[in-house]
Amino acid sequence: MKPQMTLKMTRSELTEFMAREFPQVSDDFVIDELGPMRLSLRLKVRELHLRPGGTVSGPALFALADVGMYLAVLAMIGPEALAVTTNCSIDFMRKPQAGVDVIADLRLLKLGRVLAVGDALIRSDGHEAPVARASLTYSIPQGKVQAG
Amino acid sequence: MKPQMTLKMTRSELTEFMAREFPQVSDDFVIDELGPMRLSLRLKVRELHLRPGGTVSGPALFALADVGMYLAVLAMIGPEALAVTTNCSIDFMRKPQAGVDVIADLRLLKLGRVLAVGDALIRSDGHEAPVARASLTYSIPQGKVQAG
Amino acid sequence: MKPQMTLKMTRSELTEFMAREFPQVSDDFVIDELGPMRLSLRLKVRELHLRPGGTVSGPALFALADVGMYLAVLAMIGPEALAVTTNCSIDFMRKPQAGVDVIADLRLLKLGRVLAVGDALIRSDGHEAPVARASLTYSIPQGKVQAG
Amino acid sequence: MKPQMTLKMTRSELTEFMAREFPQVSDDFVIDELGPMRLSLRLKVRELHLRPGGTVSGPALFALADVGMYLAVLAMIGPEALAVTTNCSIDFMRKPQAGVDVIADLRLLKLGRVLAVGDALIRSDGHEAPVARASLTYSIPQGKVQAG
Repeated sequence: MKPQMTLKMTRSELTEFMAREFPQVSDDFVIDELGPMRLSLRLKVRELHLRPGGTVSGPALFALADVGMYLAVLAMIGPEALAVTTNCSIDFMRKPQAGVDVIADLRLLKLGRVLAVGDALIRSDGHEAPVARASLTYSIPQGKVQAG
Repeated sequence: MKPQMTLKMTRSELTEFMAREFPQVSDDFVIDELGPMRLSLRLKVRELHLRPGGTVSGPALFALADVGMYLAVLAMIGPEALAVTTNCSIDFMRKPQAGVDVIADLRLLKLGRVLAVGDALIRSDGHEAPVARASLTYSIPQGKVQAG
Repeated sequence: MKPQMTLKMTRSELTEFMAREFPQVSDDFVIDELGPMRLSLRLKVRELHLRPGGTVSGPALFALADVGMYLAVLAMIGPEALAVTTNCSIDFMRKPQAGVDVIADLRLLKLGRVLAVGDALIRSDGHEAPVARASLTYSIPQGKVQAG
Repeated sequence: MKPQMTLKMTRSELTEFMAREFPQVSDDFVIDELGPMRLSLRLKVRELHLRPGGTVSGPALFALADVGMYLAVLAMIGPEALAVTTNCSIDFMRKPQAGVDVIADLRLLKLGRVLAVGDALIRSDGHEAPVARASLTYSIPQGKVQAG
């Protein structure tokens, strides 16, 4: 197994980290699953995430993909790191279902010394058809990750 | 002048439309400038837009670009239309300055029968270096725009 | 099964179509696999696809993703259609291995009335680590596809 | 003027570099204009760049944006560097005009220590309406650029 393939944080450590660092939004998110190079994040949909008509807004879906990717990277490189988003390309494909949570399934495709790349597939809870897909790049401060 | 080059809405009509359709967020935004195929939108930065450290969050910058593009399209095709975002690719380049608004300068590059394409350059108020850039595609419901 | 979930073309029909419509490049590509909403396309790497150093060039990888998505869409909507690429976002993650083909695994995530959205994972033949990933949007001329 | 705002290479130095490093394609491209943080690159359209119907192919437009960005970065950081494309998001907006060259106008928006970000507007020679737009990110090997 390659060095970067081992998780450095547990689900509860990630959840605590999120509550401490992002107190304004951490209640919105739940980590449903966590594994090496992958993570599923749930947005507990509330009034403020909705557009008129009752569907989850684009910025809320963007935030879900962005926070999910951030946590997936952190889980692999540890909490002392300061990864920052440098690019996100997101396709909105279908209206989210009304009245249910949305879930992002994230996979890391590259965890390099300076860049991490991954993508997210977002679906409404209990439905298969993807609502959105996103690809994200994070920049990692030097000296935090050994493997390329 | 091509048919699509004429504004169909004034700045105050757009502002009223935004207040009616997006009451939760319309107070956050001010249209600084409006012209054919271009619009400048200001995010009046508040506590809820900030990440720890005092910089504007990624989702807030995404929302600024997205709302700005939406308004720029609407200004050209009229308020009865139902344009929806289909893609956004955003690059985060620099930390926004603390304590000032951020402004997105949007330009429409294509206003087709089914798709509108544009981009946004986002900067901190009073500073030149771009904080972020985004390109956005909107899908336009059939029968709303005549020109190609 | 939804209407759009059935293949309208076989692998050999797609190959013949490619030879007829793209005679300059069709010898470069082989369809390795084909299924509903998915297709694997191989680039038979030749001198002209290489950059100095012997790795496959960015434009060659872009063409592989683009042609693969085009064929995956055509397989579902039939050869009379005239789908055109409207967006491609591609991440280059690792150098391709020297001396081997590259393969793109494509999946369609949405096949709508006017837009098709999919993504591609590109790897060197015999290696697992992804070389590149791409997401692509195709515009479909009206009246060609029934399902949304 | 900031340190990174000075050109380190002239137009003829860039042209020579391109001829030496990319002998297969360098005849296709001409640098029309060069300035600090900006460059215009012309693709001399030939048979092999065309799709059926006589319009320039997507991969040829992608290559134009990619080579243009590469040269724009090199002009600022010098020829010893080894910048590599990490992301390109490209929107195809209109068919290129038949029988004329296409030109990409590139601007660098960020020239950082590890990443350079820019965008390209591509048009048919003698026409104003943009054919395509692209945003590109290049990774820069460490120790090559001082300014952030």
